[in-house]
Amino acid sequence: MAYFMQMRPFLCRTVTKYVGTLRCEIRLFSGTLSKLDPVFSLSTKKGYPSCKGCLEKNCKQNLKIKTRKMSALAGRDNDYIFRQLLEYTSFTYTYILADPESKEAILIDPVIEMVNRDIKIIEDMGLNLKYAINTHVHADHVTGTGEIKKKIPSCKSMISKYSNAKADVQLSEGDKIKFGKFELEVRSTPGHTDGCLTYVWHQKNMAFTGDAILIRGCGRTDFQQGNSGRLYDSVHNQIFSLPPNFTLYPAHDYTGQTSTTVEEEKKLNPRLTKTKEEFIKIMKELNLPYPKQIDRAVPANMVCGMFELQDAKK
Amino acid sequence: MAYFMQMRPFLCRTVTKYVGTLRCEIRLFSGTLSKLDPVFSLSTKKGYPSCKGCLEKNCKQNLKIKTRKMSALAGRDNDYIFRQLLEYTSFTYTYILADPESKEAILIDPVIEMVNRDIKIIEDMGLNLKYAINTHVHADHVTGTGEIKKKIPSCKSMISKYSNAKADVQLSEGDKIKFGKFELEVRSTPGHTDGCLTYVWHQKNMAFTGDAILIRGCGRTDFQQGNSGRLYDSVHNQIFSLPPNFTLYPAHDYTGQTSTTVEEEKKLNPRLTKTKEEFIKIMKELNLPYPKQIDRAVPANMVCGMFELQDAKK
Repeated sequence: MAYFMQMRPFLCRTVTKYVGTLRCEIRLFSGTLSKLDPVFSLSTKKGYPSCKGCLEKNCKQNLKIKTRKMSALAGRDNDYIFRQLLEYTSFTYTYILADPESKEAILIDPVIEMVNRDIKIIEDMGLNLKYAINTHVHADHVTGTGEIKKKIPSCKSMISKYSNAKADVQLSEGDKIKFGKFELEVRSTPGHTDGCLTYVWHQKNMAFTGDAILIRGCGRTDFQQGNSGRLYDSVHNQIFSLPPNFTLYPAHDYTGQTSTTVEEEKKLNPRLTKTKEEFIKIMKELNLPYPKQIDRAVPANMVCGMFELQDAKK
Repeated sequence: MAYFMQMRPFLCRTVTKYVGTLRCEIRLFSGTLSKLDPVFSLSTKKGYPSCKGCLEKNCKQNLKIKTRKMSALAGRDNDYIFRQLLEYTSFTYTYILADPESKEAILIDPVIEMVNRDIKIIEDMGLNLKYAINTHVHADHVTGTGEIKKKIPSCKSMISKYSNAKADVQLSEGDKIKFGKFELEVRSTPGHTDGCLTYVWHQKNMAFTGDAILIRGCGRTDFQQGNSGRLYDSVHNQIFSLPPNFTLYPAHDYTGQTSTTVEEEKKLNPRLTKTKEEFIKIMKELNLPYPKQIDRAVPANMVCGMFELQDAKK
């Protein structure tokens, strides 16, 4: 089970703070990767002894830290943070992804009513929120992006340029969203709306599909710029082309499921396993009710929640 | 990124079926681990060519399979299946854990109203449900265990022997629950009830804590055999002693969060970071309402849902 994480440079004075987030069996070295001189060993079991040298003002000595395991507040691979969050009214999933080393975090599809919860989790974990990202202009809830930017001004909003919505960053097919040592690939998956994007985290075998594909379902195509044929092509060309073991995290689920895989949906999705013609017919005959929040949500989401927030909250 | 899974013996005739669940870059070998003779290579990109030898009746040649990546319907590590499921009335989390090779699966804390959903997912993934397990005698919902056993008679129910509830298997501290190549360690964590268990999946850095610890909270201690002091000791001795990067999956969350870590709760749990005396005082002063479903749920759960199912469903 023993393994070593990659080496990372640290200013000495940051080491003590950092060590507080690690498990036992930590060794600190200085020098290059090829020639490491042990400086001292630390064990969190014995407390967090500080290196006096490190705490000196203007100390510029570069230490490198070598650990058997990294914990911090990380995910199962120990080198990333992943949290799935739920809003119970519109059944929307919000995701926090972060790099525990650099502390850079992104938030996908925040909901306005849950902004305080989301920010508290991010702050509790000591993360720096870099981007608040929308998969599309939602019709069933108001995005939390505007509220988040009010509370964390350095955070930038992101949405597809194909949505014609306003945001700090407008995303296009093939763009990369970088946070720490990670990046998401932006894939255009229109059909539910023109500006629907799927974010692929290749490093962790995940994709965040918004409403393009849901677990055993898909987003509706009967309002905004809905187009069943386009949605079918988007899913087949941009999502089903991912490796089969990729976990898909949708923007919603109404049955209490939290994730699926590419392989499962390719085999089991009751709509998208059909031919394109059959799919278009199925979608045409759904006869769904008018979305409750659409008249409130779409105008607010077209500006990423930055205007009329008081109206939107009513 | 290239890595190789461990070698596993297969009867030849099972290989073709198995290959259908794998991704490309598969190589089959016969012989011992130290001396491997390539038999043939397969690529799912090129379809699933069958080894004629393998399909012969009574073929006893042992093949070993070596893969770069395994997919099936697996989790992110590609060698396990993990699904978190939610029931929206009592906000109960149900978990499916499985080994995609042997197909053996277990279900933790199923809810009676969601049994059809849970079984459909298990069947869709081609899994064999070995055990339906309860973390404790729930007071807020009726377990799905009885309904599941009616539909899958080979599935065995499990609960703590300290609960005095009836089940096919009564679990004790230190027991191991085996499914395929995996096992859960049973830890006794009383305090919410006498029979509360935490199941630790060391192989995947996870623990399923029931109501012993919740995300930034804990189970109540004011009914059944509730005892705040015991709960405090259980959490500190049996859960906080796990490595800090272990992900904790509770039986409930009421804020839309899905998981936490040992380290987070050790730092941030507003109750369990206090002294034992302060914790007991906090719990005493909660003044929570009487649980809505307790009179229906506890009698049904004391027999793992095997009697009075019709009454329980009312």
